[in-house]
Amino acid sequence: MSGRVVRAPEGHLAGDVLEQARKARRRFMATALALGAGAATADAKAADAGDPAILVLPEHSKGLGQPVAARGYGQPSKWEQNLQRRQSPGLTQVPQASVSFCPLQSLFGIITPNGLHFERHHQGWWDVDPAQHRLMVHGLVREARVFTMDDLMRLPAVSRIHFIECGANSAMEWANSALPSVQYTHGMLSCCEFTGVKLSTLLDLCGADNRTGQYVLAEGADGSSMTRTIPMANALDDVIVAWAMNGEMLRPENGYPLRLVVPGVQGVSWVKYLRRIKVGDQPFYAKDEELHYVDLMPDGTYRQFTSIQECKSVITTPSGAQKLLDKGYYNVTGLAWSGRGRVTRVDVSTDGGRNWRTARLEGDPLPKALTRFNIDWMWDGSPAVLQSRAIDDTGYVQPKVNQLRAVRGTRSLYHNNAIQSWRVAESGEVANVQTF
Amino acid sequence: MSGRVVRAPEGHLAGDVLEQARKARRRFMATALALGAGAATADAKAADAGDPAILVLPEHSKGLGQPVAARGYGQPSKWEQNLQRRQSPGLTQVPQASVSFCPLQSLFGIITPNGLHFERHHQGWWDVDPAQHRLMVHGLVREARVFTMDDLMRLPAVSRIHFIECGANSAMEWANSALPSVQYTHGMLSCCEFTGVKLSTLLDLCGADNRTGQYVLAEGADGSSMTRTIPMANALDDVIVAWAMNGEMLRPENGYPLRLVVPGVQGVSWVKYLRRIKVGDQPFYAKDEELHYVDLMPDGTYRQFTSIQECKSVITTPSGAQKLLDKGYYNVTGLAWSGRGRVTRVDVSTDGGRNWRTARLEGDPLPKALTRFNIDWMWDGSPAVLQSRAIDDTGYVQPKVNQLRAVRGTRSLYHNNAIQSWRVAESGEVANVQTF
Repeated sequence: MSGRVVRAPEGHLAGDVLEQARKARRRFMATALALGAGAATADAKAADAGDPAILVLPEHSKGLGQPVAARGYGQPSKWEQNLQRRQSPGLTQVPQASVSFCPLQSLFGIITPNGLHFERHHQGWWDVDPAQHRLMVHGLVREARVFTMDDLMRLPAVSRIHFIECGANSAMEWANSALPSVQYTHGMLSCCEFTGVKLSTLLDLCGADNRTGQYVLAEGADGSSMTRTIPMANALDDVIVAWAMNGEMLRPENGYPLRLVVPGVQGVSWVKYLRRIKVGDQPFYAKDEELHYVDLMPDGTYRQFTSIQECKSVITTPSGAQKLLDKGYYNVTGLAWSGRGRVTRVDVSTDGGRNWRTARLEGDPLPKALTRFNIDWMWDGSPAVLQSRAIDDTGYVQPKVNQLRAVRGTRSLYHNNAIQSWRVAESGEVANVQTF
Repeated sequence: MSGRVVRAPEGHLAGDVLEQARKARRRFMATALALGAGAATADAKAADAGDPAILVLPEHSKGLGQPVAARGYGQPSKWEQNLQRRQSPGLTQVPQASVSFCPLQSLFGIITPNGLHFERHHQGWWDVDPAQHRLMVHGLVREARVFTMDDLMRLPAVSRIHFIECGANSAMEWANSALPSVQYTHGMLSCCEFTGVKLSTLLDLCGADNRTGQYVLAEGADGSSMTRTIPMANALDDVIVAWAMNGEMLRPENGYPLRLVVPGVQGVSWVKYLRRIKVGDQPFYAKDEELHYVDLMPDGTYRQFTSIQECKSVITTPSGAQKLLDKGYYNVTGLAWSGRGRVTRVDVSTDGGRNWRTARLEGDPLPKALTRFNIDWMWDGSPAVLQSRAIDDTGYVQPKVNQLRAVRGTRSLYHNNAIQSWRVAESGEVANVQTF
C-alpha cells in the first residue's frame, strides 16, 4: 500500500487550507443534539495511515450481505436514528396543533427528504382516501366544477423545486428567547420538488373571471378548515395544485393527496388536503388572516396579508448546540432563500458583522428555492460570532436584527427574517446569541 | 356554492384540449401494476358538481387528527403501499446479487425519493458503522492518507443533482424479451441531489501525480470488492466522494456511509462503501471491467471501458401494463438524460416514429441529470405507438433500435439506449413492443 511519493500537482485549494486540512487528523465536532453525521466515536489515532482497522478485514468485507427485498420501501441507516424531526416541548398545548421541526443542522444540499419535512398542523393530520377526495372550483367562474384526483392527474403537469417556510419560523427570536439549535430557530423550513397542475389551468377550465375575480380562496378538508386568500395575480402566476413531493405522492402530514403550492409565500397558504377554490372580488378575511399571521407593529396597528417570505439565510453548520473540537479548517455551510426570486449572493461574517466574505453558492440558484452556500473558515480558537447575510435578485439585503426592529418593533411573532448569530466560545461550544 | 357565471378569460391552453378536459369526467386510466396515484375506484358520477360526498362532511373534516410525534421520521401514505421498488423474479440466482427496480411509472418530476432509489448489489448490502469506516488514498501520490468520515465531512463540500443508471438498464430489450413495464425495462435509473467532497480535493490533499497518474482505482468495502478504473480527467472534473443523497446521509443499500458519484457514467463505477482510491499509470483491468460491463460486438470482439451513458429517454406514462380507460386528453410524460451533458430537446411520436412533436421540458435541464418532459395528446381510441427521442447538447440523437443494432449487433447486454416503444391497443391496454 506504499505509494510512490511524487511531485504534487498545483493545488485546487489555497495552500493554507490544504495544509490545515492535512494536519486535521482529529474528529472536529460533536453536538449535544442529533447531528446525523454518524456517531463521531472514532479514535483519532485510527485516522493515521497504516491504521490496523483497514488491515483486518471487517465482516462486511468477507460475508454475504443483505438481499434485495422482492418488494420494499427503503429506510435510513440504523446509525442515523437520531436524525429526526422533533417537536419543541411545551411550544403548544396539544400535539394536534403543533409543529415538528426539520433537522436543518444535519441536512445537506437543498432537497429536504420527505421523512424529515417539517410538520405544522392546526387540527392534526389525516391519511385521506384519494379515491374519495374532491376539489371544487367555484365562485366567479363560468362553470363550477368538482374534480377527482384522477381528473386532476390527467391534466398537464409541471414540476418545480420550491422552499416552504412557516410564517412563524424564527418567531421566538423576536423575544430574545434564543432557542438552542437551528432545528428550533429555523426548522419550519423545507424544500422539495413539487408536481401538480397549475392553478391557472384549473381556473381556465372553469372559466374564471379574472377581471372582477381578483382573489382566490383556498380551503383545506381537515377539521381546522384552513382558509387563505390568494391574489389572482399570484394564482395565475406560479401556484400549483400539487399531488407529489420529491417524486412521490405527498406525505399525509403534508396534505396527501392534494395541497396548494404557493411559491415564495408563507406555509399557511400552502393549504393541505385542498378541497375548495373559490374565486371572489375581494379578500375573504379568513380567521387565519384576521387573528393569526398578522404582524403587530410598534404603533399598535397590525400588518395583514403580509405573506411573502422575504430574503433570509442561516448557517446550519456550525450552529447552536454543536461543538467544535479542534482549531483549524471548517467548511461553514448554510441555506439562503427569498420569496421574491433568486438568491444572488450570500456573505458570511465570523466576527459578528464587522467583516464579510462572499460564500460559494452551490449550483445555479433556483427562484423561490433554497440555495446552499459554503465557505472556508480557519478557526484560530478564539471566540467568534458567525453570521450569514443573503441578497436576492431584487437587490434586497437581509436585515440585521436592529434594522428589522427599528421598523417592526419587538412585539411581532411572524415574518422574522433577521440575520442569525451563532457564538463560538473558546471551548468550541456554539450558542444562539442576539447581536445588534 | 353557486358561482356567478361570467365571461371566461382567454384560455392558457389550446381550446381543443380545454374542451376535452372539460368533458373528461370519468376516471381515465388503471394499471395492472402499482400506479401509485391512489386507487382509482371513484365512481365516475361522483365527479359531477353537486356530489353528495362534499355535502356530507367526512370524519377528517370534523374530528381531531393525528398528533405530531415528539420525534419521528415520516412514511408514505397507507394508500401508497403498492408504490415500491421490486425485484424482477428469476432475473438472478441469489437475491444478494440482484436488482430491485425503481417504479418509474409512478414517479413525478426528476428527484427519486430515497426509499425508491433502485438497488443493485453484487454481494448484498450492509449497514456499515460510519465511525469505523475508512477511505485510503494511495498509489501515485506524494502522501498516502487514510480518512475517517469526520475527516471527509470537514472538507469543502459540493451538492449536485445527477442521474445514476446501471449499464445493464434496458438490457433485456436487446433480446426482444419485452418486459411488461417501465419499472423493469428502465427502472435501474434514479436521480438524486448528492453531497460530498470533490475527488479532486482529496487527490490534491494527497499530492496526486496527474502527469503519470492517468487513472484512478475506486474500491468498495463490501464482499464483492467492486473495483473500477476512472480516468484521471474524469476524476479531476466532476467526481464526488459522497456521503449524502437528497439531503440526508446515504441509504445502506446505496453505499452508506460513502460512495463515489461519477456523473454521466454507468452505476457500477459509483462504487459503494468506498474504501480505497489508488492513483496509477494505467487502467486497473478489474474483474468488472474484464468479465462484465463489456459490449460484445457483431464481429466477436468486445468494447471495453465504455462507461458513458449515452443520451436516452423513455415515456413513463402511459407505459407498459397501464391501461387507458377512455379516449380524450392525456398528459404524456417521461424522463430524458445524457451522460455527456444537458438534454436540449425531446420529441414524442404517437404513430411509431412517422411524425414527431417537441415536448415541454420541465425547468432548466441540468447536466447529467434527469429531465422531465410533458406533452399533450388526444387519444382517438385507435391503436397507437408512443415513442420519445432525446437530443443532448453535443447534438447526439437517441437512436432507433435498428440504428443501434446496425452498429452493435444483437448480442450485447449493456449500454442499450435505443428508443422505447409502447403500443396502445384499441382496448386501451399498453404493451412493450419493439419497432424497427
